Amino acid sequence: MSLLARTVTAIAPPDETARAAARERLDRMTMPRGALGRVGELGVTLAAIAGACPPPVPEPAAVAVFAGDHGVHAQGVTPWPREVTAQMVANFLAGGAVVNAFARQIGAEVLVVDVGVAAPLDPQPGLVARRVAEGTADMTTGPALTRAQAAAAVEVGIEVARDLVAAGHRALLTGDMGIANTTAAAALTCAFTGADPADATGRGTGIDDATLARKIDVVRRALARHRPDPADPLGVLAAFGGLEHAALAGFVLGGAAARVPVLLDGVNAGAAALVAAAFAPHAVGACLAGHRSVEPAHQLALAHLGLDPVIDLEMRLGEGTGALLALPVAQGAARALRDVATFDAAGVTDKEG
Amino acid sequence: MSLLARTVTAIAPPDETARAAARERLDRMTMPRGALGRVGELGVTLAAIAGACPPPVPEPAAVAVFAGDHGVHAQGVTPWPREVTAQMVANFLAGGAVVNAFARQIGAEVLVVDVGVAAPLDPQPGLVARRVAEGTADMTTGPALTRAQAAAAVEVGIEVARDLVAAGHRALLTGDMGIANTTAAAALTCAFTGADPADATGRGTGIDDATLARKIDVVRRALARHRPDPADPLGVLAAFGGLEHAALAGFVLGGAAARVPVLLDGVNAGAAALVAAAFAPHAVGACLAGHRSVEPAHQLALAHLGLDPVIDLEMRLGEGTGALLALPVAQGAARALRDVATFDAAGVTDKEG
Repeated sequence: MSLLARTVTAIAPPDETARAAARERLDRMTMPRGALGRVGELGVTLAAIAGACPPPVPEPAAVAVFAGDHGVHAQGVTPWPREVTAQMVANFLAGGAVVNAFARQIGAEVLVVDVGVAAPLDPQPGLVARRVAEGTADMTTGPALTRAQAAAAVEVGIEVARDLVAAGHRALLTGDMGIANTTAAAALTCAFTGADPADATGRGTGIDDATLARKIDVVRRALARHRPDPADPLGVLAAFGGLEHAALAGFVLGGAAARVPVLLDGVNAGAAALVAAAFAPHAVGACLAGHRSVEPAHQLALAHLGLDPVIDLEMRLGEGTGALLALPVAQGAARALRDVATFDAAGVTDKEG
Repeated sequence: MSLLARTVTAIAPPDETARAAARERLDRMTMPRGALGRVGELGVTLAAIAGACPPPVPEPAAVAVFAGDHGVHAQGVTPWPREVTAQMVANFLAGGAVVNAFARQIGAEVLVVDVGVAAPLDPQPGLVARRVAEGTADMTTGPALTRAQAAAAVEVGIEVARDLVAAGHRALLTGDMGIANTTAAAALTCAFTGADPADATGRGTGIDDATLARKIDVVRRALARHRPDPADPLGVLAAFGGLEHAALAGFVLGGAAARVPVLLDGVNAGAAALVAAAFAPHAVGACLAGHRSVEPAHQLALAHLGLDPVIDLEMRLGEGTGALLALPVAQGAARALRDVATFDAAGVTDKEG
């Protein structure tokens, strides 16, 4: 059995016993019932993921930034040169990007996984060299990947998750880098949600009206060409890419199989989570939506997955930045379930009636 | 000149030069312009508060939980016994409340300030004994406080802020504890915003319809009795209390005078910020809204103050919990401005055109 098949088989449903125990504990904690709102629910979800109440505090944390290039860049979907993918990888490795600043602030590790950058990258600390191809092919003229390439990239993500968990990490954060990757994310999201490209395609890093119209047309033509079957996630990945989306889907599967929470970043993570859910519906149970991106495909993906974002601050940067801002909230939620006294234990009088 | 008058005089407008420098720096950072959304704006605000670009990362942080009791409790506005205020103070000091769990998670200090608890409290580490009165009087039968008591409580807050800054803290977080204090918060918010009590009064810790109707009536009667003048913040505080709201207003003024950011928690902090703004409009410039509470008075206060909350997760706990969840976001925003490489420095190609 392949690593992918074994991983999918290993993914169990969330633990409803632990979920119920966490809800019950929340109600005995020294605070008015329900006063933690959605933060209380986050703690309950973490208990269901871990299969334990209280759940372990999700730390230490690592953000894996999966980087890849996109053949569809040739269609003029972005004003950024393709070389920027490799340049930003170098920036991540030098510690100079926003993902690095946010990670340092909260003590998270940053790992960069080259799963498909189309430029030479020298070996260096922090870079995980797992290139499956030098970028994808153009989805408008043929499949972006072979099925074998798509499967290989998914397995890279599974292995990265497995290795991080083996190294002791208890929170996996998704990151991504790939010029033109919001085009692939829009196509993937349309494939799994049935949305129209005009409703799913956004301005990504910030494009003008003419480029947006071209980008919508590109997504529409790619969907018409490949007629994706949402029940065949490898086929969908092969049609549109990207290599980083495939790896991110595997990363979600790997976290879910290990019962370690996966904090999703933005639109690329959302698209990847749709892929993961097509492989294993229960994988969604291990996911927390770190933030809500302004990209329309992200809203569609979150609604389809039934996930509510923790942070909603109009970000559209990617890299894992939204997941990193959400992590302390998830950690606080778990820690509250573990540490907060009950009414009985603290000698606090419960509400009358 | 009184400490209050001196503090009000010391509050300067936000630094527009630093604000402009931060905006300009954001645009040169290695990310698409505007991609940090409101997180970028938070960093810009922190620069304007500090008068420096990049702004100092707001750490170390302390949350000051101002505790007080309320004479209006006698009107049956809550099902919680008044003794719970003192019991929760003991819980905070023992480290057993949610505010403690959240603070430990992010390395913030918790300070409990007894500014008006109506029960004996033994001296102990972490408790700042600054009781002005043993709770307020019932606002429906007379003024909650004398003007002198209100002024004294405001000055307690100023001194707590001053002492925390002197001890090296660079982020001041508001916390509060006081059974029945959302009734005072609703009255204060009506006084400053002109809102109708039915639109400002909420369910606080969770009350039934009959209690809510009674609470609205209580706020309405108190407003009718005192006819508060929003240009006279001491008079408004004297009319309604609470002692913790007065101290929180002073805490905001003290932070603003020191150019140290004040992260507001929920509805009680919002009401106190309205008081602070009535003393010194520029004090609002030093405030960040940590979260949006489900209490209706909080929405009204934030709108009146022109503040957008960082976190919006349907919490209604108080204690400082919402401010604590927002702090890492503010810290990340400042750190990004300080640490992230510019396009030139990182050798990353900027967007074409």
